[in-house]
Amino acid sequence: MSSTLDVGAVPRHGGRTGQALRFAASAAEPAGRFMTTAQFRQWFAQRSHVNDFRTEPIPLHDLRDWSIDPVTGNIGHASSRFFTVEGLRVRTDFGPVPEWRQPILHQPEIGILGILVKEFDGVLHCLMSAKMEPGNVNVVQLSPTVQATRSNYTRVHRGNAITYLEYFVQPRQGRVLVDVLQSEQGSWFYQKRNRNIVVEVTEDLPLEEGFCWLTIGQLLELMTEDNVLNMDTRTVLSCIPFATDAKTAPGGEWERALAATLDVDSTDATAVHDTVEILSWLTELKARYSLTAELIPLRDTTGWEISDDRITHPDGKYFDVFGARVLASNREVTQWTQPLMAPSEQGVIAVITKRINGVPHVLLQARMEPGYLDSVEIGPTVQCCPGNYRDLPKAQQPAFLDLLDTLPKSALRYDVVLSEEGGRFYHASNRYQVFEVGDEVPVAVPENYIWMTLGQMGTLVRHSRYLNVQARSMMCSLHSLWAV
Amino acid sequence: MSSTLDVGAVPRHGGRTGQALRFAASAAEPAGRFMTTAQFRQWFAQRSHVNDFRTEPIPLHDLRDWSIDPVTGNIGHASSRFFTVEGLRVRTDFGPVPEWRQPILHQPEIGILGILVKEFDGVLHCLMSAKMEPGNVNVVQLSPTVQATRSNYTRVHRGNAITYLEYFVQPRQGRVLVDVLQSEQGSWFYQKRNRNIVVEVTEDLPLEEGFCWLTIGQLLELMTEDNVLNMDTRTVLSCIPFATDAKTAPGGEWERALAATLDVDSTDATAVHDTVEILSWLTELKARYSLTAELIPLRDTTGWEISDDRITHPDGKYFDVFGARVLASNREVTQWTQPLMAPSEQGVIAVITKRINGVPHVLLQARMEPGYLDSVEIGPTVQCCPGNYRDLPKAQQPAFLDLLDTLPKSALRYDVVLSEEGGRFYHASNRYQVFEVGDEVPVAVPENYIWMTLGQMGTLVRHSRYLNVQARSMMCSLHSLWAV
Repeated sequence: MSSTLDVGAVPRHGGRTGQALRFAASAAEPAGRFMTTAQFRQWFAQRSHVNDFRTEPIPLHDLRDWSIDPVTGNIGHASSRFFTVEGLRVRTDFGPVPEWRQPILHQPEIGILGILVKEFDGVLHCLMSAKMEPGNVNVVQLSPTVQATRSNYTRVHRGNAITYLEYFVQPRQGRVLVDVLQSEQGSWFYQKRNRNIVVEVTEDLPLEEGFCWLTIGQLLELMTEDNVLNMDTRTVLSCIPFATDAKTAPGGEWERALAATLDVDSTDATAVHDTVEILSWLTELKARYSLTAELIPLRDTTGWEISDDRITHPDGKYFDVFGARVLASNREVTQWTQPLMAPSEQGVIAVITKRINGVPHVLLQARMEPGYLDSVEIGPTVQCCPGNYRDLPKAQQPAFLDLLDTLPKSALRYDVVLSEEGGRFYHASNRYQVFEVGDEVPVAVPENYIWMTLGQMGTLVRHSRYLNVQARSMMCSLHSLWAV
Repeated sequence: MSSTLDVGAVPRHGGRTGQALRFAASAAEPAGRFMTTAQFRQWFAQRSHVNDFRTEPIPLHDLRDWSIDPVTGNIGHASSRFFTVEGLRVRTDFGPVPEWRQPILHQPEIGILGILVKEFDGVLHCLMSAKMEPGNVNVVQLSPTVQATRSNYTRVHRGNAITYLEYFVQPRQGRVLVDVLQSEQGSWFYQKRNRNIVVEVTEDLPLEEGFCWLTIGQLLELMTEDNVLNMDTRTVLSCIPFATDAKTAPGGEWERALAATLDVDSTDATAVHDTVEILSWLTELKARYSLTAELIPLRDTTGWEISDDRITHPDGKYFDVFGARVLASNREVTQWTQPLMAPSEQGVIAVITKRINGVPHVLLQARMEPGYLDSVEIGPTVQCCPGNYRDLPKAQQPAFLDLLDTLPKSALRYDVVLSEEGGRFYHASNRYQVFEVGDEVPVAVPENYIWMTLGQMGTLVRHSRYLNVQARSMMCSLHSLWAV
């Protein structure tokens, strides 16, 4: 195969800025060629009805096709594919806890999270899927065109063919507009990453059942509603570059100022830190602190209660792992069992924004999570389940968490509950919040925090392992503020 | 500590392009404020005389302060710092060999490779060090201002203070212009990376013995001589951004065309592949192929001859590991012992360049080396010790290696012998060559090869783990072609 054949027949559109303007034009479209957002809601409600699944907890030892290894206690599928539940031993000099053990999901395969886009009436539309996942609070959420593990898409176990997969595997038609490996939850997954890919096609293609075409403006409007866009949609969407003509952006002066920071040519000049400084800040932290995370037998995960029934933390903190049976009320569809991980409570994922020299900046934090391949990634200002910290001294509570409660209601610019991946996590929801502050938060911040613009986040997200999955979700929240 | 304090007192100079123009202006200066290149050569010869060391091979079991672990056979320092010699088991579906074991150097610390720069008479100068390393063929080579492992610079073992270290550790004065973690040889090191950092100061500072100030133009002129710039200098230099006014560049039309590709705003538009396509090519290869590399006891490295005396491959391939005693003829200086790794022969590191639509492109290859943290990095067109492949069938010989012999002498634009790191490797030299080809090499290339411009290489090298250390060295060779 020749690498020059992979370019596809779709022409380039004026480089990155040209593509970013096309994406922004789609973000400015409140209605799609095929359905308004009101019509989408009707269609989506109907899809939820068609996919009327329910998930029942069962003991781990009752899982079919999954087994508990007699030596290690690790939980794995009979095929050795999909994922395993193993133990992790962590040692670090970053943060208050120098050493711990925990269960972790190990899924070494790289999956595909792909959105197909196509111009209709000159506007890019995204092909989205109404997809059931067993851990979703509301069964069905809006997913990328394709969302598949390698075990799924190489059809090792002869599952059904994956609709539209052919657009995302070689040899393929179409032009790749985004294609980057991104990490997922570093506290729950060991070195997991997925391929976030956007492919543009010009050819006609059939619209299969359960799929719809929406503009990016419609997707960003749906970002303002609880639990509609699933995590995989949000992470792919976050990797899309935008460049707006900020003067004509909707909304007020703050929203236009936020949109203005998307201009990659000027955002570095007006930001508190240029990209060299941001990269140096991250390099410094990686060089100064160390993290060692080793997979160990699940049985050796001291400090946790592990039975053949369920895995729990004795204080009720962090998460449980249990078995789930997935049942369709519609009798035609297959049922299956699998392990699921359930966080102990709803989490808080918040960013503080602040105008510095008139330019909106987002406060982000360097986080060392044990599942990251390269120790440190950048997350939101606050990312935690508060209960996990409730018995720790004040100095060890997450920074800025207390502050959020003291901010006036008028500071809250975004407040939506969103779910983490429903294929592995049960009812894992987080409250995503964007606050705008003034002098309550000074420009000087602790060493592991940094102010950057939304445009600078867009520069980083082109590459792997800079922004964690929570920060990437938050980018979609922030984009919804200027676009909707 | 506040991250806003880290910026330093040195002003920004018009963002990345402004900095890149300043670096290019220094590259255009053939003589420095303090010495001409002829004067440098005299000074450097004198420094080589002062540092008259010699390295003698000794059996591994005669190393002082190093020991062979009775259980694993691993070789380590009594302090548990510096590095160890361990075993590695590799499994991959990339390339002709699916599984092998080999010895590997394990050095988990992140060291500092730092160059201090300062303007004199409006031109940036680099503070360079004439430094002895035991594995160098010529004892002394030109090194960055600071070249120190973490064990060195945190002075765990009370070594001498490292000159100028204070400019590279927090809290520091000065403005960081480059700061990125980069990998080193993935066939010899397990997941090693060093911090490549350039710091600009405006304050006066003393010139210590063994150091000199040179322009980047002088450094690039020295790139055309065998074994002057050491590997650490080359990797830091490769991370420096350049942007030239190509019309006024020295040399002929080809050199000016090469310099023109440095313009980050235009290089994507005129290149065969834009950056999105290059990143997608790499993502595709990472997703398609897998690499598992696990540290194992050195004793379990089957296929190698391991004794208390020396480690060798029975076919005389790859490398040996032996003990070395480093002696100073000047009796005042301490002597020490350490393990060194010696490659079996001089290697070939070559790039093919070709004008495509008039624009010079460099042919690079995606390489899966077992020591890479993220499996694949981008290397030169050819990177090998030919003898390692001599008994393999033709189809498994390195691509393009044969072709090099068939090219006319006029195609050879650069041909210099350069050393790899002399602190770990004994007489590890490679012949670096740049060829310019015409129709001998078509634009269509195998799937793990890609054409990109020197400017696109500069975009990638801002980030970790895109360009391997051989490709980064080659960037300095290529820069010398337009600058000198």
